[in-house]
Amino acid sequence: MSTDPSPDFGSVDRLELPHHSFEAEAQQLDAADALAPHRDAFVGSDSSLIYFDGNSLGRPPRATAERLARFVTEEWGGRLIRGWDEAWMELPFVIGDRIGALALGAASGQTVIGDSTTVLLYKMLRAALDAQTARDPERVEIVVGRDDFPTDRYLVEGIAAERGARVVWIDVDTTRGVDADLLRAAVGPRTAVVLLSHVSYRSGFLADGAELTAVAHRAGALVLWDLCHSAGSVPVELDAWGADLAVGCTYKYLNGGPGSPAFAYVAARHHAALTQPVQGWMGAADVFSMGPQYRPAEGMRRFLSGTPPVLAMIAMQDTLDLLDDAGIGAVRAKSVALTEFAVRVADGILSPLGVRLASPRDAAERGGHVTLSHPAMRAVTARLWKGDVIPDYRDPHGLRIGLSPLSTSFSETLTGMRAVAEAVRAES
Amino acid sequence: MSTDPSPDFGSVDRLELPHHSFEAEAQQLDAADALAPHRDAFVGSDSSLIYFDGNSLGRPPRATAERLARFVTEEWGGRLIRGWDEAWMELPFVIGDRIGALALGAASGQTVIGDSTTVLLYKMLRAALDAQTARDPERVEIVVGRDDFPTDRYLVEGIAAERGARVVWIDVDTTRGVDADLLRAAVGPRTAVVLLSHVSYRSGFLADGAELTAVAHRAGALVLWDLCHSAGSVPVELDAWGADLAVGCTYKYLNGGPGSPAFAYVAARHHAALTQPVQGWMGAADVFSMGPQYRPAEGMRRFLSGTPPVLAMIAMQDTLDLLDDAGIGAVRAKSVALTEFAVRVADGILSPLGVRLASPRDAAERGGHVTLSHPAMRAVTARLWKGDVIPDYRDPHGLRIGLSPLSTSFSETLTGMRAVAEAVRAES
Repeated sequence: MSTDPSPDFGSVDRLELPHHSFEAEAQQLDAADALAPHRDAFVGSDSSLIYFDGNSLGRPPRATAERLARFVTEEWGGRLIRGWDEAWMELPFVIGDRIGALALGAASGQTVIGDSTTVLLYKMLRAALDAQTARDPERVEIVVGRDDFPTDRYLVEGIAAERGARVVWIDVDTTRGVDADLLRAAVGPRTAVVLLSHVSYRSGFLADGAELTAVAHRAGALVLWDLCHSAGSVPVELDAWGADLAVGCTYKYLNGGPGSPAFAYVAARHHAALTQPVQGWMGAADVFSMGPQYRPAEGMRRFLSGTPPVLAMIAMQDTLDLLDDAGIGAVRAKSVALTEFAVRVADGILSPLGVRLASPRDAAERGGHVTLSHPAMRAVTARLWKGDVIPDYRDPHGLRIGLSPLSTSFSETLTGMRAVAEAVRAES
Repeated sequence: MSTDPSPDFGSVDRLELPHHSFEAEAQQLDAADALAPHRDAFVGSDSSLIYFDGNSLGRPPRATAERLARFVTEEWGGRLIRGWDEAWMELPFVIGDRIGALALGAASGQTVIGDSTTVLLYKMLRAALDAQTARDPERVEIVVGRDDFPTDRYLVEGIAAERGARVVWIDVDTTRGVDADLLRAAVGPRTAVVLLSHVSYRSGFLADGAELTAVAHRAGALVLWDLCHSAGSVPVELDAWGADLAVGCTYKYLNGGPGSPAFAYVAARHHAALTQPVQGWMGAADVFSMGPQYRPAEGMRRFLSGTPPVLAMIAMQDTLDLLDDAGIGAVRAKSVALTEFAVRVADGILSPLGVRLASPRDAAERGGHVTLSHPAMRAVTARLWKGDVIPDYRDPHGLRIGLSPLSTSFSETLTGMRAVAEAVRAES
């Protein structure tokens, strides 16, 4: 705690009563939460640690340790190379379809588990850009938000440099994200592809998928959606939006484990026209003919490159089971209730300390996390971690409160946010 | 079995005596094998199944199920996002260095675990080609063997098309691979990069790493070694060869599990000059500054792209422990003894059936597998699989006998090859 007497201290003391009412509210919300039993399915749900970072690395379901051990002994060890013919060759498509159905609004045959998010974004951006410029050599612009996740920006920069394309940056308010007006001003007859974040990694701003897709399409552009911060917490409706391509993480709300492989979606209408540059055996038309020339496979297989990361895609299936049971609608409803509660608690006990909400206030424009801004937040984060309260920090001054709906309770949220208040007081 | 009386049948019957002497020999070799106890470390070593495909997917060590389960509960579940700071950010380099020291003859700081083999080969080929053409615009040729693994050929084709480079194909005898004479005839002042297989996936031909690297260097070319079929069974001496770049599999002799991520090596002298095109946050100089522009990190980090596949690189550590204990020299000595024995058994009981050795006869030119050719081998493979004898099949007519040194015994080899003889008789 700072030795300076804090001018906000008195106002915090006066908030003791609201503290108590928040507690009652948290208990009521937990009691009414139909998804509350699912929280017990996660490792650590019985510990006192407060986890506000399930939007960065989701907790493991308890079933996952046993699922992986069984996979090693029975499938890998028991079936050995026969596992490829019997199940694993199709596993990227089977799990992809499951994610598509449960979380993405994607009919089967359009979603696949592939490489890392970064590599899949590279392949999808190249596929879209190269097809567009082949069709119309004037379409050489890639549109991306200047506040998007570094990988998205770095990839676009690199691809523009190597392909002779041009980057069109959209400047955004860092407490929001790219909306229809901003996008409309950025696209035009030279736009090849637009890379959009469905939920902003920084602010949690939730973009309107249908509207932004329509804006891009009216300009003749293809849209690649980055779903990293929405898949598994916010309903995505790729088919209904008319989306072209999408890529998303599985280690956040889908709890696939550290560095688990990403998924990619390509709308069926584009399968014949799009190809990607990393031409490996798993993307070839006949994998085991090993013929003299690369001919891309039909359908989603053409977007694969190397041997599918089977061991790395085993874990995420436990969360898909939970999601199948809960339904993405109920998950979103709880997510909204969690972030609404977090905003109310922030207004009550953090706003008096000078903490500012750096996320949209309207739940309809907000994904699964809430970002709180204060000049001391870097130090606050370090202090919280020492006390087993684990949020994430993002420049500038942003404390991200990630509230993974299946594994987070309202009481945990309140306890954690009280710890944030204490830490802010101590570091101010 | 064919209903035609086989002309070879009589000669096989006359081989009953050698069968018995092979059995005695197998028992003697097993008894003298200092690495024999290591075989018990693998799942399935106590089963009657014969596994001849550890060069495609290695057996899991018994310790791996428990290691993965513990990782899920204690590290992922217990440390959560803190795991990245505490260990996981460095894990690609820690495990990479271990592979480098134990199997590749690579000093630390030059080997990293990254993406799939295919993606890493793409990135390394692009890094080498782009640097060479930037230095000398005349260097636009990529040299590759026409009999190399499909991924290698497909990647080279694709990169040549997108970068305006030219492929120079080396035609080889499919029972051998690229040697110094063939390479010398293919390289010249226009060669940018040579992609070479250390051990041929088809024939098992073992290339002379030092000599071929020198041939390429004399022409001013960079060499990218594909180590998929050698890493963990054949000593590799990347630093001593003066190699430039290398990529290899971890799911074969390193038993990392189906689709486990590959490793890449870049000689330290090239780190400053080479960059790769898949610019993600993990390759940036300051990962968490998330600044406006991509600046590649120093050292091997610049060859990373996305979030490291941590869960997928856990399993391979068990085999690294075994390799650390056994030493790659002893592993190679057993590998040579196994393939020598297999060749003798093939000469004794398979040659009379019309089966031809499609691998080098000289052990100094042979890696860890032996390929046997016969027109019926596709059907033979299917028949063997039904009887729990698991080799691999590769066109044309090739039965691959993979003899993973740590997990294969001489008696298992003999039993399996007798089953091959029976199956060839049945399918001829």
